[in-house]
Amino acid sequence: MSQEIGVVGLAVMGKNLAWNIESRGYHVSVFNRSSEKTDEMVEESKGKNIHPTYSLEEFVNSLEKPRRILLMVKAGPATDATIDHLLPLLDDDDILIDGGNTNYQDTIRRNKALEESNVNFIGMGVSGGEVGALTGPSLMPGGQKAAYDKVSDILDAISAKADDGASCVTYIGPNGAGHYVKMVHNGIEYADMQLIAESYAMMKDLLGMSHQEIAQTFKDWNAGELSSYLIEITGDIFEKIDDETNEPLVEKILDTAGQKGTGKWTSINALELGIPLTIITESVFARFISSIKEERVKASKHLNGPEIKFDGNKDEFLEKIRKALYMSKICSYAQGFAQMKEASDNNEWDLKLGELAMIWRAGCIIRAQFLQKIKEAYDNDNELQNLMLDPYFHDIVSNYQDALRDVVATGVRNGIPTPGFSASINYYDNYRSANLPANLIQAQRDYFGAHTYQRKDREGVFHTQWIEE
Amino acid sequence: MSQEIGVVGLAVMGKNLAWNIESRGYHVSVFNRSSEKTDEMVEESKGKNIHPTYSLEEFVNSLEKPRRILLMVKAGPATDATIDHLLPLLDDDDILIDGGNTNYQDTIRRNKALEESNVNFIGMGVSGGEVGALTGPSLMPGGQKAAYDKVSDILDAISAKADDGASCVTYIGPNGAGHYVKMVHNGIEYADMQLIAESYAMMKDLLGMSHQEIAQTFKDWNAGELSSYLIEITGDIFEKIDDETNEPLVEKILDTAGQKGTGKWTSINALELGIPLTIITESVFARFISSIKEERVKASKHLNGPEIKFDGNKDEFLEKIRKALYMSKICSYAQGFAQMKEASDNNEWDLKLGELAMIWRAGCIIRAQFLQKIKEAYDNDNELQNLMLDPYFHDIVSNYQDALRDVVATGVRNGIPTPGFSASINYYDNYRSANLPANLIQAQRDYFGAHTYQRKDREGVFHTQWIEE
Repeated sequence: MSQEIGVVGLAVMGKNLAWNIESRGYHVSVFNRSSEKTDEMVEESKGKNIHPTYSLEEFVNSLEKPRRILLMVKAGPATDATIDHLLPLLDDDDILIDGGNTNYQDTIRRNKALEESNVNFIGMGVSGGEVGALTGPSLMPGGQKAAYDKVSDILDAISAKADDGASCVTYIGPNGAGHYVKMVHNGIEYADMQLIAESYAMMKDLLGMSHQEIAQTFKDWNAGELSSYLIEITGDIFEKIDDETNEPLVEKILDTAGQKGTGKWTSINALELGIPLTIITESVFARFISSIKEERVKASKHLNGPEIKFDGNKDEFLEKIRKALYMSKICSYAQGFAQMKEASDNNEWDLKLGELAMIWRAGCIIRAQFLQKIKEAYDNDNELQNLMLDPYFHDIVSNYQDALRDVVATGVRNGIPTPGFSASINYYDNYRSANLPANLIQAQRDYFGAHTYQRKDREGVFHTQWIEE
Repeated sequence: MSQEIGVVGLAVMGKNLAWNIESRGYHVSVFNRSSEKTDEMVEESKGKNIHPTYSLEEFVNSLEKPRRILLMVKAGPATDATIDHLLPLLDDDDILIDGGNTNYQDTIRRNKALEESNVNFIGMGVSGGEVGALTGPSLMPGGQKAAYDKVSDILDAISAKADDGASCVTYIGPNGAGHYVKMVHNGIEYADMQLIAESYAMMKDLLGMSHQEIAQTFKDWNAGELSSYLIEITGDIFEKIDDETNEPLVEKILDTAGQKGTGKWTSINALELGIPLTIITESVFARFISSIKEERVKASKHLNGPEIKFDGNKDEFLEKIRKALYMSKICSYAQGFAQMKEASDNNEWDLKLGELAMIWRAGCIIRAQFLQKIKEAYDNDNELQNLMLDPYFHDIVSNYQDALRDVVATGVRNGIPTPGFSASINYYDNYRSANLPANLIQAQRDYFGAHTYQRKDREGVFHTQWIEE
């Protein structure tokens, strides 16, 4: 019989997604450029409805029409090459799904090019890592709606399920919308991780907490409004002991954070859109600084800092760190969602922001209880200008701001870097300022460049001769 | 007789540069697409050696060979169009100079394309505004060195002169190096302006200073190590009274800062290069936030802040603001110069960082006394990894850091936004940290994505099964 879907690219993500699909009762054809991987997978798939193929022709001919093909190849040129090889073998209305870590601009280009050949192209963000791919990822598919409807049964079946049973997949929007949303998701992930890292630095360097105490703190936090996957695994991480040294493993790990580039893409896009994305961007820059370890070690010998002193109440301050983390997280999501709103308007994607929060509630790395609150905020008002203007969130930030101020001021006075926390409180204060000192910047621009300015008290465009010639 | 140089594009910058050149004893042909501007300039050029032409053919034929042509047309498609029209009329070894506000990537492309037609192309950054163009700008020419040598006499003659008499022009490097350096110059300008604006906000909102006091403060500062054009004009600005209201004009100006995009380009490039450019980038984001005035006014009604209280010594705190401003400026330049060093290595431009500081000492918007110190730092070591590692600068930052900490902590506690100051102290503390909490980020990445990690205590790449399956 002919297979219901095919998967091209059998690295761990492709293999796990294929098994996930098969486990929901589908017959799956698989193909890999090097046949070893295919044979290897057949070995591991005894008793499963996995149908191996050894040429793209055999692969394509094994599928029922309209064909549904999931591409899980390396993002970039490899994806273009695979599409070029497949295209002559396909028929009208066939559906290609790119589940790779693709830049949304490439997806827009490919969607347009393939549409001209009457082939549908869906760019789908997949979050959840290897385990999520196998057991239930969060899926962000974008492309032709009619094509989405022909694959939604499978995507729905394999996706993660939230506590209320809802599937963590929905139609995101046309062309590149799916990969775009996945990009911002990853940017938000960068900020979440940076803010947790800053909390850890305060616990360790300021409060002198042990790893057991830190582990317990994150487990406690995970039982409250911060409840999320990243807080949960952070608790696990601090419990892990290094076999060789019998000391906490996390302290043995080199403090140079790697990256795959999606956080960088998110910041670049925000700059292009004119959206203030300060917290994610500081998180990206913080990874850059972490990567120049040798230079930092050298600088540490020349550049002085204050002596770290803490003489307050430890438990009270720990609670302030918790509030600072939650408020900063809200500021960061407010920025990311404002960016997606702007991109949606510019690209006519008609993104449903509440649904995005909804499909992030399970499966993906940033899954968190408070995404339910974001969903509700946009259910109440999909045109909400900023998350902090929603009643639930503006109550929280108004109540937690003092804690965040205290944490930032204490970090700065003690020489403990808090770029994410600092960017958060500065964003909050900038955003809530009816008046900013930018009037001086406009005066300077008019003084040296005759760039003109507007006035607060009346309409018009003005230029001033600031000094007598 | 044939003219020694020609200028295409007679808007204010082109016109002023043409007059500047003529005033140094050169005969100058001018051309503008619409002849009205040409006639207008002829009217204004009585008794000057300005030779008007009314077709590109007439213009080109009026010039001695090899021809030296300065393009002062709008950056972008207009520049490409002008080049396309000129090219068929030119001979081998002719020299085109683009003095527009061009993106360096366009300059790299044009330099390469024209070189294939044996025409030299110099992309030249011009800073100093309209007045600078007429009386002496800072010039940043990049392109073929041999071509630069054939125009250096003119560029040298028209450029600004530093106090020691040195011309504010030098050969920057191949292809796009000149426009690249101008881009970073503008990014640095964004940060300088933001940091001054934050100082103003502290003086006004925290210390309750009058405009006369603020004006006098900037004039005093301009007599010291902060001595610079932007500090000077800021003093003038606070003295300017609005004719209609008889109140300080600066307070009548709408607090929405505009921009032409070069700051944004600088931040995007830093993200692409992997360079932490936090201060300039926060300055760009601050302009974005300033531009959503209506939203800020709305937010100001929902989002609370602390009551502003200051009970310290006003004069002492004012001196701390001065130190905070100078230290933040050093951090910002350290980032900008680190970015130029990285770009120089990537593009094989062999930038002389000390010379860049030297040609910025006069003519341009960021001209400042302390650029002499930067020049000396790179004269001592052109491979200097970071400006803060130079003895003069690490003494200053080590001595001023407490003041910056106090200013940031006070701003944060009082709800006065200081994104630039905050980014500065966080950069300082991140950069001087032998250990950052990025080890936790690597642990998280290895936990959820099997991204592996390195260890502090031995070589190798490691992956851990963080919890029992």
